[in-house]
Amino acid sequence: MSSLTGARPEFGKVVVFGVGLIGGSFALGLKAAEQVDEVVGFGRSLATLTQALDLGIIDRVGANAGQEVADADLVLIATPVGQMAEIMARIAPYLGPETVVTDGGSTKSDVVAVARSAFAERIAQFVPAHPIAGAENSGAGAARADLYRDKKVVLTPLPENTVLNVARVRSAWEWCGALIHELDAQQHDRIFAAVSHLPHLLSFALVNDLALRDNHDLLFSYAASGFRDFTRIAASHPEMWRDICLANRVALLDELDRYRAQLDEMRDALQRGDGDALECTFALARNARRNWGEGQLR
Amino acid sequence: MSSLTGARPEFGKVVVFGVGLIGGSFALGLKAAEQVDEVVGFGRSLATLTQALDLGIIDRVGANAGQEVADADLVLIATPVGQMAEIMARIAPYLGPETVVTDGGSTKSDVVAVARSAFAERIAQFVPAHPIAGAENSGAGAARADLYRDKKVVLTPLPENTVLNVARVRSAWEWCGALIHELDAQQHDRIFAAVSHLPHLLSFALVNDLALRDNHDLLFSYAASGFRDFTRIAASHPEMWRDICLANRVALLDELDRYRAQLDEMRDALQRGDGDALECTFALARNARRNWGEGQLR
Repeated sequence: MSSLTGARPEFGKVVVFGVGLIGGSFALGLKAAEQVDEVVGFGRSLATLTQALDLGIIDRVGANAGQEVADADLVLIATPVGQMAEIMARIAPYLGPETVVTDGGSTKSDVVAVARSAFAERIAQFVPAHPIAGAENSGAGAARADLYRDKKVVLTPLPENTVLNVARVRSAWEWCGALIHELDAQQHDRIFAAVSHLPHLLSFALVNDLALRDNHDLLFSYAASGFRDFTRIAASHPEMWRDICLANRVALLDELDRYRAQLDEMRDALQRGDGDALECTFALARNARRNWGEGQLR
Repeated sequence: MSSLTGARPEFGKVVVFGVGLIGGSFALGLKAAEQVDEVVGFGRSLATLTQALDLGIIDRVGANAGQEVADADLVLIATPVGQMAEIMARIAPYLGPETVVTDGGSTKSDVVAVARSAFAERIAQFVPAHPIAGAENSGAGAARADLYRDKKVVLTPLPENTVLNVARVRSAWEWCGALIHELDAQQHDRIFAAVSHLPHLLSFALVNDLALRDNHDLLFSYAASGFRDFTRIAASHPEMWRDICLANRVALLDELDRYRAQLDEMRDALQRGDGDALECTFALARNARRNWGEGQLR
């Protein structure tokens, strides 16, 4: 695909492993910006790959990963984190000298560790990234060219990365409309354990708690909009979230224990009928949530 | 106000205590259906009462509660639950023989107990109700004529209520567009502890946990759509939720303990790196949440 403006697209060949919501939206975003010549897709399911072809997400289904990455400008690994080690090991020996690899994993320390082991002396070619644009829907059918518009993408560059390689990954996400931030991988994982991974665990736990009861139909029939929003993320992809929890286990356990201590305090206040303590907690939370919500609108 | 069809409205005078989201929307719903002649409002804040007048929610600010309820057809008490005892005691001696009283409280056993004490031999005139149409916004400015359209209103009628009095309360909510359900008060409180009160507590706890940290600005800056939905209910009214928690303390403590046991199980699975157990829990939750969500669309 060449640009309407006549300029050459920034990327010739892009290879995407995992053509679902994250990988598919990345491909569609680059295509919408006319910044890629050809997208080649790999995936575990032939049905998803066929769907991605039909939807124009990819131009071709890849047959040999080593061959395809040898002359690729950019490789995105957008599978659940648990599958990344195997893919990295498969492509590492064949990476072209100019090929840059990035990923879409929700955890970073573990991905960096796996990448160091797989890419070894070529680790400079791997620039880790985390697009903050999850949705409870998954699969190629959920992919959209504008998924990343005005959404954050966090890069956690490695000391070995060249400025040029970081700039190319940054540029690809920017063509998709994203706002680029940079964090250290450990800092990234601690932050997302608190603001994303913990809430997912809490939401899964609530739905599970209700679903396992004999009177679950009665209970669910009276659940309303508060329940709907609180549990939206409990419809997230189980395998992806298993991998995230395991990958970020240490930070998540730490967050879970902090939260349980907070819950214990509230339980004590409730037990002793301490309305002032409860109201104070609720008011503090309300103010913080409202301030955050208003900041999001800016 | 007389009906455009020429028919008399079902209710002549309606008195509303608390002209915020719940009481104000009830008044607007009856007015939109042309089923009320006059709405008289009471409240703690002159500013809110003035706003309710300006918005056409009420026709008049009441001066003497006893006088106003003496010839009212219907009285709605839509204040936080903690204020209801005082209002009921104030109006009980003056209730007209035909006047029916209802409420909008989110808990029912405690409201019934308070009402029995206040109304004594006139308890047959009180029909408890809980409209399931909360929102994190509150106040007269948030009131809307269609707030209750296709929303559930749960009546928990008393053995003393006449069929006629229950029918009149049912009819008022139906004119507002609501779908009427009936439950026993204790059953109501157990159900809503699970599907509403517990999620609110969990959401307040998460925001509070983050807000109290030194790096809260950094954390909140990376919070995204999952966090937004999970914590929407943490912006709910602190005083109202204090009263709900205290009023439904026993059932809520029970739910909280069940939930903590569920969380402990997930923590154990995470600690021992048991991916199968985590994925199984997540998949069960996802299926239950999706089935519920699809049921909501029907």
